[in-house]
Amino acid sequence: MRRALVLLSGGIDSTTLLHYVKKTLRREVYAISFNYGQRHSRELEMAKWQAKEVGVVEHRIVDISFLKDLAVSALLDEKAQLPSWEEAQQGTPSTYVPNRNMILLSIAISYAESRRIPEIYYGAQRQDYSGYWDTRPEFIEAMNRVLKLNPDFQIQIIAPFVNYRKADIVRLGLKLGVNYEMTWSCYRGGDEPCGVCPSCVDREKAFKEVGLHVK
Amino acid sequence: MRRALVLLSGGIDSTTLLHYVKKTLRREVYAISFNYGQRHSRELEMAKWQAKEVGVVEHRIVDISFLKDLAVSALLDEKAQLPSWEEAQQGTPSTYVPNRNMILLSIAISYAESRRIPEIYYGAQRQDYSGYWDTRPEFIEAMNRVLKLNPDFQIQIIAPFVNYRKADIVRLGLKLGVNYEMTWSCYRGGDEPCGVCPSCVDREKAFKEVGLHVK
Repeated sequence: MRRALVLLSGGIDSTTLLHYVKKTLRREVYAISFNYGQRHSRELEMAKWQAKEVGVVEHRIVDISFLKDLAVSALLDEKAQLPSWEEAQQGTPSTYVPNRNMILLSIAISYAESRRIPEIYYGAQRQDYSGYWDTRPEFIEAMNRVLKLNPDFQIQIIAPFVNYRKADIVRLGLKLGVNYEMTWSCYRGGDEPCGVCPSCVDREKAFKEVGLHVK
Repeated sequence: MRRALVLLSGGIDSTTLLHYVKKTLRREVYAISFNYGQRHSRELEMAKWQAKEVGVVEHRIVDISFLKDLAVSALLDEKAQLPSWEEAQQGTPSTYVPNRNMILLSIAISYAESRRIPEIYYGAQRQDYSGYWDTRPEFIEAMNRVLKLNPDFQIQIIAPFVNYRKADIVRLGLKLGVNYEMTWSCYRGGDEPCGVCPSCVDREKAFKEVGLHVK
């Protein structure tokens, strides 16, 4: 069975991806998650639950909390005000963490190369394009061109949902039996989702579109 | 004055680069170093000394010790045998840390973007080509193609020594007044350089070629 590594945040996109890679693509699945001092660390608990649910070979959680001191972002700064959903639609939102996704991918690549895993699955999707340059198809292609230069082991970053909207992803996930109660989207770190941050609003819109009643 | 960030390990190449960027290019210099559980953590003390010596605006040391658990490499594993200089000349040596340089660069990019620093200086040089794919000009070009996609802030990775041999770098450094006693090359973590690891041998060869008598 071909090995694959999934970048798993514990949100809707990467959780659905995890189930898709395991159940549809039938890969031998490894998962990697990151603790980077994000406000919403509850998503890591969800990631752990989901990794166990699909039965991964290994789930690594990597501490990159240095990012909080190093990078400027409303996502990492507890005192910063989060943007509204409307504000988040214009250009790069203040929740963007500079170059975060290249950091996450580069660490995942190191792990994959060490374990001889040739495929890395990345849950980038279409709705994030407008705001986050590092979720676009061009970004993924350019990263893959870097990886082609490695003479010893070839790894490919694959983003099957890159042209999906969030509702499309949820539709697929429901077919795959994903339990969305065990995912977390809210940018805030509370016990309950805040319901007003851009990520909560996107989640609610997607669930509403497919007629799903989950928080 | 234009800002520039230097990746500073405390070895010969990056230390010379630091002095070059400050004294020849006359940039406002920031430095970034990494603690990744390498055997030779003494190089970090040298990095600190050199950063102070040239007067950087800020020197950040980032803890990425997660790498030790995640990646397979003789450089990170205290029990592994280091290769001889001869062994290290054939293909990728066992001291290669999978995708390490992309990790270091991606973190540097995050910091540079947060601080609005448009240039990142990287001490890649020609003698490492044979072994380390992530020091080659093609690698740097491909990384820069990724960075061109960032719509908000343009950063360029610059490797002025990419076609230099180590002896060329030392020659330049001597003109710039670099104190090579305050650099560290040995892969081992002892009080004195071991004199036999590939990095010690490369250092000695370069110093001998330019007639420099330093350990």
